[in-house]
Amino acid sequence: MNPLLQAAPSWSVSQWLNASSPITLDSLRGKVTVLHAFQMLCPACVSHGIPQAKAIYQAFPQDKVAVIGLHTVFEHHAAMTPVALEAFAHEYRLGFPIGIDQAGPDGLIPLTMRAYSMEGTPTLILIDKAGYIRLHHFGKLDDIRVGAVIGQLLTEPAES
Amino acid sequence: MNPLLQAAPSWSVSQWLNASSPITLDSLRGKVTVLHAFQMLCPACVSHGIPQAKAIYQAFPQDKVAVIGLHTVFEHHAAMTPVALEAFAHEYRLGFPIGIDQAGPDGLIPLTMRAYSMEGTPTLILIDKAGYIRLHHFGKLDDIRVGAVIGQLLTEPAES
Amino acid sequence: MNPLLQAAPSWSVSQWLNASSPITLDSLRGKVTVLHAFQMLCPACVSHGIPQAKAIYQAFPQDKVAVIGLHTVFEHHAAMTPVALEAFAHEYRLGFPIGIDQAGPDGLIPLTMRAYSMEGTPTLILIDKAGYIRLHHFGKLDDIRVGAVIGQLLTEPAES
Amino acid sequence: MNPLLQAAPSWSVSQWLNASSPITLDSLRGKVTVLHAFQMLCPACVSHGIPQAKAIYQAFPQDKVAVIGLHTVFEHHAAMTPVALEAFAHEYRLGFPIGIDQAGPDGLIPLTMRAYSMEGTPTLILIDKAGYIRLHHFGKLDDIRVGAVIGQLLTEPAES
Repeated sequence: MNPLLQAAPSWSVSQWLNASSPITLDSLRGKVTVLHAFQMLCPACVSHGIPQAKAIYQAFPQDKVAVIGLHTVFEHHAAMTPVALEAFAHEYRLGFPIGIDQAGPDGLIPLTMRAYSMEGTPTLILIDKAGYIRLHHFGKLDDIRVGAVIGQLLTEPAES
Repeated sequence: MNPLLQAAPSWSVSQWLNASSPITLDSLRGKVTVLHAFQMLCPACVSHGIPQAKAIYQAFPQDKVAVIGLHTVFEHHAAMTPVALEAFAHEYRLGFPIGIDQAGPDGLIPLTMRAYSMEGTPTLILIDKAGYIRLHHFGKLDDIRVGAVIGQLLTEPAES
Repeated sequence: MNPLLQAAPSWSVSQWLNASSPITLDSLRGKVTVLHAFQMLCPACVSHGIPQAKAIYQAFPQDKVAVIGLHTVFEHHAAMTPVALEAFAHEYRLGFPIGIDQAGPDGLIPLTMRAYSMEGTPTLILIDKAGYIRLHHFGKLDDIRVGAVIGQLLTEPAES
Repeated sequence: MNPLLQAAPSWSVSQWLNASSPITLDSLRGKVTVLHAFQMLCPACVSHGIPQAKAIYQAFPQDKVAVIGLHTVFEHHAAMTPVALEAFAHEYRLGFPIGIDQAGPDGLIPLTMRAYSMEGTPTLILIDKAGYIRLHHFGKLDDIRVGAVIGQLLTEPAES
């Protein structure tokens, strides 16, 4: 195992949408995990990040690639409430599970966003089958490059 | 005057954004008025209607063409609150005045939406200098056609 | 009549596509004329100018607005031949008449392009019902603005 | 080796652009090869296939992934000549090598297009490091899926 790789921190989620029960990172071991961090009122998320997450969700079988949305609200907290996110997910036809990142003690940066040292939204994080972070990108990244990393990670053995 | 034209009903607005005081339809007499009815969580509004309203706002001087946004919430009322709309307008850089359509007695269809018999969002309504409705369109309408009607209305005399 | 307006020069066309006989500027008197100058291998023409010309052609009745393509080849002459243009017009589903601008004595800038002092492609020229140039734009111009000028010109009387 | 895989046929090219000498399929052994078959006057090639090929060319180092354009003219032969292709490649800023598919005895379907049983343009073919065809797609294929196959092929050993 590459000692330089960082194990993906477990996430802290206060509520799940599109999931019958909470999803843990451990339960995704053996799959490639695409963690898409967004805010529903972030224009670049709506125009770029979310369409990319939807394209990934449609391109791969769910037993191979798990797409997980993470609503990391760090601004406009009064606007981007759970009930607003539910309406957003309904209107934008988001089918993948979405976790609401747990508010932090300061009320600003939520816990998972902090644990992953995310700089803003959208942020794309690819986690390999063994639970290590293999890509961490803030902003836009073109689909060809994202697809290539997913394709590479899919070829790796499930057991590291 | 064309007896078949419908006078634009006055609007009922509970709160204004991007305006120092309430804007009445009467105060816009002499200008061409572009009334853009939208909901902040309506995908076609975000991808088509709002960019069109912004393009109109940038293309014409404000003393000739008044662009007025109207937030006609008829679904997901708990999500599309005034504070959420403020965050939305900030993030999407909406500079034109936006009125929040007054909730109706049934709590579903707001008053202005009902008065104009709007069928959904986005709806574009063009009102001439004399206060008559000259275009009423639900859904997408291409910029060439919208521009042509505005150009035509601009040539009409201010006094009818 | 505004003495500052420039009468549109007549065009010099060596061959017409999508026209049963040559089209003269005089024959369009009474209509608003949209002259869309392009080169088939100009990327901005393909991505912007031609879609705009097609949108105009679809938006207005042909007895009100005449859309005329003008193939103003000023570079890559050996590539953009009449037979190549015919294939291009077929593949891109161009239904409006297209004139091939007459090659000039120097073999570089064709005659109509020179007469109109066009700087490159795409160039959009709007000619009013009386035959005067009312808009002359090199490069991209958004559909709202183009539509507004057409709408304005349509309101003018046919006889100046 | 998978006995069901088809070895990529060698290509028949009458002329190369953006290459100092002819490029053989054998010389690309050890790289992932992206063969992008197009026609310069095919609208779907211009709007989808060529931007995809350019994105691939920019995303990967050239010693890992070879992008090869193939101009497979099967219609409008008089229009899509070598000199026209040169102008097209210049205007569209195509930096990768482009081979002109060798005309066939019937003058219609060129030789490489026939050898690969291509159905039209654009066609995307991915060839692995050992020279086997791993993806053969006529029409549009989204970048996420194309990237994933390239990413997978990159992980395979150079020697099969």
